[in-house]
Amino acid sequence: MAGNSFGQIFRLTSFGESHGPALGGVLDGCPSGLPIDLTAVQADLDRRRPGQSGITTARKEADSFELLSGVFEGRTTGAPIGFIIRNRDERSSDYDAMAGSFRPSHADYTTTAKYGHRDHRGGGRSSARETVCRVFAGAIARQLLTTVGVEVGACVSGVGPYQFATADRFFSREEVDANILRCPDETAADQMIRYIEELKSLGDTTGGVITGFVRGMPAGWGEPVFDKLHADLGKAMLSINAVHGFEYGSGFAAAAMKGSEHNDVFTTAKAGRIVTRTNHSGGIQGGISNGMDIRFRVAFKPVATLLKPQETVDTGGNPTVLEAKGRHDPCVVPRAVPIVEAMTCLVLADHYLRHRSSRL
Amino acid sequence: MAGNSFGQIFRLTSFGESHGPALGGVLDGCPSGLPIDLTAVQADLDRRRPGQSGITTARKEADSFELLSGVFEGRTTGAPIGFIIRNRDERSSDYDAMAGSFRPSHADYTTTAKYGHRDHRGGGRSSARETVCRVFAGAIARQLLTTVGVEVGACVSGVGPYQFATADRFFSREEVDANILRCPDETAADQMIRYIEELKSLGDTTGGVITGFVRGMPAGWGEPVFDKLHADLGKAMLSINAVHGFEYGSGFAAAAMKGSEHNDVFTTAKAGRIVTRTNHSGGIQGGISNGMDIRFRVAFKPVATLLKPQETVDTGGNPTVLEAKGRHDPCVVPRAVPIVEAMTCLVLADHYLRHRSSRL
Amino acid sequence: MAGNSFGQIFRLTSFGESHGPALGGVLDGCPSGLPIDLTAVQADLDRRRPGQSGITTARKEADSFELLSGVFEGRTTGAPIGFIIRNRDERSSDYDAMAGSFRPSHADYTTTAKYGHRDHRGGGRSSARETVCRVFAGAIARQLLTTVGVEVGACVSGVGPYQFATADRFFSREEVDANILRCPDETAADQMIRYIEELKSLGDTTGGVITGFVRGMPAGWGEPVFDKLHADLGKAMLSINAVHGFEYGSGFAAAAMKGSEHNDVFTTAKAGRIVTRTNHSGGIQGGISNGMDIRFRVAFKPVATLLKPQETVDTGGNPTVLEAKGRHDPCVVPRAVPIVEAMTCLVLADHYLRHRSSRL
Amino acid sequence: MAGNSFGQIFRLTSFGESHGPALGGVLDGCPSGLPIDLTAVQADLDRRRPGQSGITTARKEADSFELLSGVFEGRTTGAPIGFIIRNRDERSSDYDAMAGSFRPSHADYTTTAKYGHRDHRGGGRSSARETVCRVFAGAIARQLLTTVGVEVGACVSGVGPYQFATADRFFSREEVDANILRCPDETAADQMIRYIEELKSLGDTTGGVITGFVRGMPAGWGEPVFDKLHADLGKAMLSINAVHGFEYGSGFAAAAMKGSEHNDVFTTAKAGRIVTRTNHSGGIQGGISNGMDIRFRVAFKPVATLLKPQETVDTGGNPTVLEAKGRHDPCVVPRAVPIVEAMTCLVLADHYLRHRSSRL
Repeated sequence: MAGNSFGQIFRLTSFGESHGPALGGVLDGCPSGLPIDLTAVQADLDRRRPGQSGITTARKEADSFELLSGVFEGRTTGAPIGFIIRNRDERSSDYDAMAGSFRPSHADYTTTAKYGHRDHRGGGRSSARETVCRVFAGAIARQLLTTVGVEVGACVSGVGPYQFATADRFFSREEVDANILRCPDETAADQMIRYIEELKSLGDTTGGVITGFVRGMPAGWGEPVFDKLHADLGKAMLSINAVHGFEYGSGFAAAAMKGSEHNDVFTTAKAGRIVTRTNHSGGIQGGISNGMDIRFRVAFKPVATLLKPQETVDTGGNPTVLEAKGRHDPCVVPRAVPIVEAMTCLVLADHYLRHRSSRL
Repeated sequence: MAGNSFGQIFRLTSFGESHGPALGGVLDGCPSGLPIDLTAVQADLDRRRPGQSGITTARKEADSFELLSGVFEGRTTGAPIGFIIRNRDERSSDYDAMAGSFRPSHADYTTTAKYGHRDHRGGGRSSARETVCRVFAGAIARQLLTTVGVEVGACVSGVGPYQFATADRFFSREEVDANILRCPDETAADQMIRYIEELKSLGDTTGGVITGFVRGMPAGWGEPVFDKLHADLGKAMLSINAVHGFEYGSGFAAAAMKGSEHNDVFTTAKAGRIVTRTNHSGGIQGGISNGMDIRFRVAFKPVATLLKPQETVDTGGNPTVLEAKGRHDPCVVPRAVPIVEAMTCLVLADHYLRHRSSRL
Repeated sequence: MAGNSFGQIFRLTSFGESHGPALGGVLDGCPSGLPIDLTAVQADLDRRRPGQSGITTARKEADSFELLSGVFEGRTTGAPIGFIIRNRDERSSDYDAMAGSFRPSHADYTTTAKYGHRDHRGGGRSSARETVCRVFAGAIARQLLTTVGVEVGACVSGVGPYQFATADRFFSREEVDANILRCPDETAADQMIRYIEELKSLGDTTGGVITGFVRGMPAGWGEPVFDKLHADLGKAMLSINAVHGFEYGSGFAAAAMKGSEHNDVFTTAKAGRIVTRTNHSGGIQGGISNGMDIRFRVAFKPVATLLKPQETVDTGGNPTVLEAKGRHDPCVVPRAVPIVEAMTCLVLADHYLRHRSSRL
Repeated sequence: MAGNSFGQIFRLTSFGESHGPALGGVLDGCPSGLPIDLTAVQADLDRRRPGQSGITTARKEADSFELLSGVFEGRTTGAPIGFIIRNRDERSSDYDAMAGSFRPSHADYTTTAKYGHRDHRGGGRSSARETVCRVFAGAIARQLLTTVGVEVGACVSGVGPYQFATADRFFSREEVDANILRCPDETAADQMIRYIEELKSLGDTTGGVITGFVRGMPAGWGEPVFDKLHADLGKAMLSINAVHGFEYGSGFAAAAMKGSEHNDVFTTAKAGRIVTRTNHSGGIQGGISNGMDIRFRVAFKPVATLLKPQETVDTGGNPTVLEAKGRHDPCVVPRAVPIVEAMTCLVLADHYLRHRSSRL
C-alpha cells in the first residue's frame, strides 16, 4: 500500500519524478466557493524554485503550473483540483554514471531494495523536486486558512554551527524574505550565507533548522488520540526530504524541565479569551490547539550529494568511487522554508475541515 | 473526523476513558495463522501497569485483558481481534474539585473548546490510561514481527538534567528492566531515580527522553513520499501523551553537520549484504529501511499534574487556585518505555504488511 | 487489508464471532453533544433479536449491550463509543459434525481458502450474528439523523413468489411491525407467513426482498464521483449477509424505459421548494440527494442452512452428506428489516457529516 | 469529505470536467515491475470513445492519454502513475442556454444544492466523460490481473424491452465487439440497434443492462464483513453514471427461490479442485471469491438528455421549457461496456493486493 496521499478530508495525492515529463497531483476535498488567487499560488512556487540565488541549485525551472480542473469562474467548485508542473531543465545524462551505483545517504539503495528497479535519473520519485506539488497544494490550503484568519510562516533558524535564537513571535514573509537565507536575523544570516558559500566551494554541504509558526489559531483543532495536531504536523515535516527531527513548543528541552517550570498557567485576556502566560505547549494541549500561537522546529540533515569523490558500492555490491555531477543545493533550508509552510497549511486545512464534524 | 485509529493495514481502533467501565479496541488486519502467546501479551501490559514501583503512580490496576474474538485454537483467524481491559481502581471523586477548572498544561481546556463538554474524571479520553490499548495491540504486533526476525526495544536515556549517552546498540529487555527506571546505565539510573524521588517529595515532576531501537530489519519497508517509515514512527511517538519531540538517526545534531561527515558510506559485509559503515541515517534512507538498526529518540515533557497549588482559571474564565488530588507519576518515562515499544511495533507491523503489495 | 470498518467520518469498526464470548465494536466520529436514548437503542436490537417469533431461529439471545465509553451524563462526548454484546445461548456442539465439511452456499470453503483455517462454530465471523453490531451503531446513527429531521424505515416486500407492490410512501415502525413478517400489507403478509411455515416444516428455506425508504432528506448529501449516495447505500446493503441485489428508484425496470417516461420533471412546491413530479430517481440524482424520499430494494437469497441432507465435500475434497443441526431462520427478511435500516442510518449519518466540509 | 478516490491499495484518484482543459488522475499502489502495454491501454480507451458509431454521441475525442510518471523503461516503478487526457472537441456554447435551468434527471439541481455553484458546461464533473479516467486506470489494472490469469469481460444484455438471456459463459472481446451494440447475440443486437435508432430519430433515449463476467478467479479474494467482494463490485458499478441497479449470481431472482434450489453443491473437479455444480453464488460466497466465474448484472437508466422540449424550472424555481442542444448518446450501454469492465478490473486488482496481507 503506497503512500502518495496526504490528509484525510483536504487531501493531496501527488505524482511525478525529477526527470519525467511532469509532476502534478489531485487536491480533493477543498470546499466549494473558495476564490483562488493564482498569482499567490505562483508566488509560493517561486519561493521554492531552484536557481533563485547563489546558494541554491543552478537548475532552472519556471515551475509554472497548469490548473486543470476544480475551479470555475475564479472559485473552487468542490470538484477535485488537478494540476501539473512540467519539467523543463532536467539533464538526465548527469546521472548516467550513477545509474550503476548507490549514492551514499540517498534513496538509491533502499528504492532498489523495495521495488526491484528504479528510475535513477535525478533520484526519480525520491527527489526533493517532488515537493513542488506540496507547495502548489499548500498554497490553496493557505488561501482556505486565510478565510478563517489563520496565518502560517516559517524561517531558517539554524545552519551548521550558527543559530538564530528565534524570538517567540510571528515573522512576516517580508521579514523572512529580506535575505536569501530566509533568516530574519541579519547577523546570523550573514554568517550562515558565508558558511554555505565556503562549503560549496569545497564541494561540501550542511544541514540546518527551520522554525515554523502559526498565528490566529482557533482553539479546538486536532483529533485525539492518534491524530493529535502536533502528531500530524510532525508526520508532515518528517515526510519532507532530509528531515531528521521535529519538536514543538518546548521540544527536547522539555525533557530537562520540571513541571513547575513547564506548566503554562491559564489566565483571562481581553474579551474574556482564555490564554496562557507562557507557551511551552507550543499552542497545542492534548493534541488540540488552544488558541495560542503554534511553534515548532524542524531539523534537516546535510545535503547528501557532494561534489567530491565518495566511496560506495555498485549495484552488484562491489566497491567503487562516485563523484556527483548535476546541480545541487549546498544547503536545503532556504528553499525548504516554503515547503515547511506548505505542509503546515495542508495539516491545518485538513484539521479545520475535520473539526467541522466534531460537534452536533 | 475523529482520530482513534492507527495504521492502514494492521490497524488499531481504540476506545475508553480513564474512569469509564473499560478501555478496549479492535485490532483489524492481523494476518491469520499467527500463534498468539497470551502470557507475553500480559507481560507487555504489566510493564506499563501503574503501581509497579515507588516512582510511579499508586493507582492499582491489574490491567488484565479479555480477548473477545479473532483467535481460535491459539492462532489468529484473520477476523478482527476485539479486546477490553476493565478499570478497577478509579477514584472519580479525586477529580470532583477539578471539574470546574482547567488544569494547567492538561487537555481540559482544549477538550472543552473542541467538544463543548467533557468527562472530567481522570481526564477522560485524554488520560494516558488510554495507552493500555496501544500496549495490548503492540504486543500482538510484536509477535507478528518476531516471525520475520524483527526485534523492538526501548530504554530511558534522559531524566531532567541526567543523560545516558546511549551506546549505538540494541539493549535486551533484561538489560532494560534491570532497574525500575529502565535505563541500562546503572550509574545514570541511580541519579535519575534519586532526582525523581526528590521532585516527588516536593510535589513536582520532571520530563525525560526515551531511545527506541530495532534490530533485524529487512531493507525495503516504508512508503514514500508521505508515509516514510520515519514519518510514521514520528507520528506514532508524537501521538503518545506528553511527547514534545522526535528525532531519528543523527536527529537535530544533523543540522550542525557537514555532508562529508554525515553521509553513511556503503560497503559489503559477509554474505554479500550491503551495509553502511556509520548509521547517521538511523536505519532509514529516503523513508525506506536500509537493513541497518533503526534508532530514534523521543522527548517527554514533565508530568503536568503537580501535587501543589497552581494558578489557573475556572470554566467561566475566573482566576482560581487548584491543587491536584489523585495518584500520579512524578515522571512518565519508565512506564512509557513499553508504550514507545508498542507504537514502534504497530508502525513496523503495518509497514511490513504494506510492503507486501509493493512488487509484482 | 481487512474490511471490518464502515464509513469515513461516522465509522463503525466491529468484531466478534457467532460463538465467541462477545461481539462488539467501536463507533468513532459521532459528534459530541448528542443525547443518547439507551432504551431506543435496545428497541432496535430487539427487532433483530433471534427467537422473536415462530418464523425465526429459536436461539435465545437477550442481545443486551454494554456501553463502555464515549457517553457522559447522557450525551456523547466526541470520544469513540465502545460497546459489547455477549453471546449467551451459543451451542457450539451443534457444529462439531460440520467442522470437517464445507456447507453448501456458506462461507466455510471460501473462509478456509482465504485464511487457511477457520472458527467453524456457527460460521464464526461469517455468521449473520455479526449484524448485531451494525444494529447497535445504526441506532446511534438514527438518533443523530433525528436531530436533522431524517427518518429511516424498511419493510418486507417480497418472500418467495409473494410480492407486496410497495406503495410509494413511508411506512411507520408501527405499520411495519404490525405483523411478525414486517410487511405492511396484511394479505401479502399472511401468504408469506404461511409459505415460510410450510417451507420450515420441510426443512427448506426461502429468499425475499426488503424495501428501504427515507423521508425528510435535505438536498445535497452524497460525494461524487465514487462515493455517490446510492453507491454507498448499495455497498452497505450488499455487505449484509445473503444479499444478492440492490436497486434504487426505478432500479432494473429503468433499463426498459424511455427517457421521456423516466425523467423526473422539476416543479416548485410550497415555500419555493424545488421538487420532482415523479421519483424514478429514488431521491438521488448524480449521486446526491435531491430532497425527495429515498427508496431502494434489497434482494436476499434463501437461507443456505437446510434441515435436510445435502451433498457436499469434506475439507479433503471427498464427497460427503451433511445434515445441519442448530437453530436457523427459514427466511431472514423479517429480522433483516432492522439491519437494512441500520445500514441505511450508518450511510446517511456518514454522508451528513461528510457534507459538512463541502462548502466554504 | 469528497469522494474522488476509488480502491484501498490499488487506488485511483481522478479529476476533470467535461469542458475543462483536461481530465486525469493518479493511480497509486500499482506494484513495481509490471510491464505496461500502452497500445492495449489506448485500445481500452478507444472502446469508450465517443463518436465510434451511429448510435453514440457525435462528439469527437481522440482520448489519447499522456502518461506522466510511474513507468520507466516500460515497467512500473512502484511510484504513482500520473496521467492526463485532454479535451479537444468541447462545445461549451451548446450549454449556455441551459446554465440558468435545471435539466430533468441530471445532476444540475443537486450539484447546486450541494456546492452553491456549478460548472454548467457539459455537466462539469457530473458528466460521464469523467469515466475516461476509470477506463485508463482499469486498463492498467487489467494488465496486473493478467499476470495472475484473471480475465474480465462484459457485454450488453438488455436494451429497452429486448433481452439477451446471457448464457452462463465468458464472452471474448472479439465476440462482444462483433457488433456496435456489444451484444454477442446477433439477433438481439439487431433488434436493439433498430430500437435505439428509432428512439434517436424521435429525440428520445432508452436504458439497458450490462452483464459482467470474470474467469480465472482464484478462491480467497474479498474482505468481510464490510468489504465483501460483491459489495465492492456493487459500489463500483453503482458509481458509474446512470446505473440504478446491481445484482450478482442469482440476483433478484434469488428472492423467489427455495434454499434447496439455490444452494450450490460442492464437488471435486480434476486436479482436486473444489468447484460447485451450479453457480447461483456468482463466484462469491460470504463475500469471498470461490474460484468459480464471477457474474453480475448492471441496470442503466435511460439517458436523461432528450432532444425535445421538456418542462423544468430555472435556478430561481420558475417554470421553464428546455430543449437540449449538444451531442448525446441515445443509449449508453454500448459505450458503458468498457467502463463496467474497467471498474471490475479496479475492484479485483485492489482485492488481489488486499488479499496479500491476509495470511501469515
